[in-house]
Amino acid sequence: MADLIKVAVDAMGGDNAPAEIVKGVVEAINEDSNVKVFLVGQEDKIKAELSKYNGYDTERLEIVNATQIIEMAEAPVMAIRQKPDSSIVKAMQMVKHGEADAYVSAGSTGANLVGGQTIVGRIKGVKRAPLAPLIPTEKGVSLLIDCGANVDARPDQLLQFAIMGSIYAENILGKRNPTVALLSIGAEEDKGNALVKETFPLLKNCPDINFIGNIEARDIPAGPADVIVTEAFAGNIALKMYEGVAKTMGRVIKNTFLTNLRTKIAYLLLKKEFTVNLKAFDAKQYGGAPMLGLNGLVVKTHGSAKAVEVKNSILQCVTFKTHNVDDKIKETLNNKD
Amino acid sequence: MADLIKVAVDAMGGDNAPAEIVKGVVEAINEDSNVKVFLVGQEDKIKAELSKYNGYDTERLEIVNATQIIEMAEAPVMAIRQKPDSSIVKAMQMVKHGEADAYVSAGSTGANLVGGQTIVGRIKGVKRAPLAPLIPTEKGVSLLIDCGANVDARPDQLLQFAIMGSIYAENILGKRNPTVALLSIGAEEDKGNALVKETFPLLKNCPDINFIGNIEARDIPAGPADVIVTEAFAGNIALKMYEGVAKTMGRVIKNTFLTNLRTKIAYLLLKKEFTVNLKAFDAKQYGGAPMLGLNGLVVKTHGSAKAVEVKNSILQCVTFKTHNVDDKIKETLNNKD
Repeated sequence: MADLIKVAVDAMGGDNAPAEIVKGVVEAINEDSNVKVFLVGQEDKIKAELSKYNGYDTERLEIVNATQIIEMAEAPVMAIRQKPDSSIVKAMQMVKHGEADAYVSAGSTGANLVGGQTIVGRIKGVKRAPLAPLIPTEKGVSLLIDCGANVDARPDQLLQFAIMGSIYAENILGKRNPTVALLSIGAEEDKGNALVKETFPLLKNCPDINFIGNIEARDIPAGPADVIVTEAFAGNIALKMYEGVAKTMGRVIKNTFLTNLRTKIAYLLLKKEFTVNLKAFDAKQYGGAPMLGLNGLVVKTHGSAKAVEVKNSILQCVTFKTHNVDDKIKETLNNKD
Repeated sequence: MADLIKVAVDAMGGDNAPAEIVKGVVEAINEDSNVKVFLVGQEDKIKAELSKYNGYDTERLEIVNATQIIEMAEAPVMAIRQKPDSSIVKAMQMVKHGEADAYVSAGSTGANLVGGQTIVGRIKGVKRAPLAPLIPTEKGVSLLIDCGANVDARPDQLLQFAIMGSIYAENILGKRNPTVALLSIGAEEDKGNALVKETFPLLKNCPDINFIGNIEARDIPAGPADVIVTEAFAGNIALKMYEGVAKTMGRVIKNTFLTNLRTKIAYLLLKKEFTVNLKAFDAKQYGGAPMLGLNGLVVKTHGSAKAVEVKNSILQCVTFKTHNVDDKIKETLNNKD
């Protein structure tokens, strides 16, 4: 039992909590015998959901009671401070105290970001802990680092994002010598704002990453860069624009299919291929966004996460721990000082 | 003849110059009897293209010879300085000297931005001249201001963008009391980077615009805001991400149709509705992006512009002049000082 990888899961966070969270946890335990999950939240509700399942290894699933819930709309800093018995705070404290290796939540992004920084805490030497969602591309998936709440970053912080993102892409996404690009408004070295121009030489001269230069947002969906480095404001806009366009186009396409009998028949003929191909553009299937540079992995999944996303987020934690990503980040960043 | 609206058109700029440019010019003249066009570029090449057409009003089309061409890849500042006999420089000088009211080019964005600022020049009181592309939405079209090369803008500059964009949307796009939003990473007033937080109260307290608050990039495609105010770096990323996702999804959909005989038949059944609905997401059909705040309108169309886009850009200049947008901008901005 000593070698089990322990994941604390916020059972109360997200639109589909606790039902889909509990379901995802049971699936993760059934799929990987190396994982133990702490389901943190209101015990009675968790038990009610768990009663739907049997045959899973009860030794590797433990309920940790937490009476409070942090709602999506709450001001993050206040919520973390004023709800010590919330599922987010209690689960994060388990990581802080070494009782869990990693943490998964579908709850408030703001509260998770604040909790990550203030409860789990940053690795020594890490200046900021970025949130790095995976975005789907024609070649698979890319890491967009940072899309968190730490806007107005400095060049030396972006350099750390690049290094951490590269280690993550190599170890968790299985990319060999992952390509790293800097988000800008032109491919040339002299294009961009002041921050990008100052960051470019730092990335270019960094021996720890495979820097391929600037990337324009238009080229992201084709997938030339495994890791896209950006300050969080621009990163958030790129991410949200991606989601917005994909969603709106998806809706327009759906409406097209529903126009008349002829288009409905066409849809039946296309359905199989269409579903497979368009699914690649649904960012949600890739599970959670890691928050890197903390003393333990924090994974934020979508608020609308279903069981499969929760399961994948938990398995992502296992890979993170198995590959010692934390240690690799510590080692590489400390070598820089 | 005195009341004709005169547009200087760069005949040599863009991937399809001069053929599609000349074609678009002839179509514009045929469609609107109030417009006179100066086709600026290499006379022999323009004449060769013009020889394909007849029946248009030759009185309203004049060739202005310019021997040099500024290529897409040239460094903008150097190109403008070292090629005084280029089509871009000569056509812009016509606006500067009042020989033309407006200018249209499909050539280098950088050269057009530099030329706009240095040759055409800014209206007195205008701090920066933003480039404001039109982006398609489910409700029609929105103005994304600024997507130019003026990165790292200040709050007072964004306020001017909001005012100019609002006047443009009302007069050219025909939006009544156009809604103006500030691009940010959250809808609440306290969300965003330092620039956005400082700009928010300026827009909120400005009596000349209908400010509706922050907008997240994800909500842009649905079309709640007629004018989206942003610093150019973030604006460019939003614009390019839009284009990139739309293009990539379009390619995936096309490939889906080509998978097998069954999907090909489905495509034939769907073709009509599909083409109509998806066309709404092709930003190119809306013609050119205005560069606002200059002594005359500068319109930059896509490098890949075809005749219809060139024609629409010219007609856009007519509306601009007919509605005295220049004067309205001058008046409103001067009232603020």
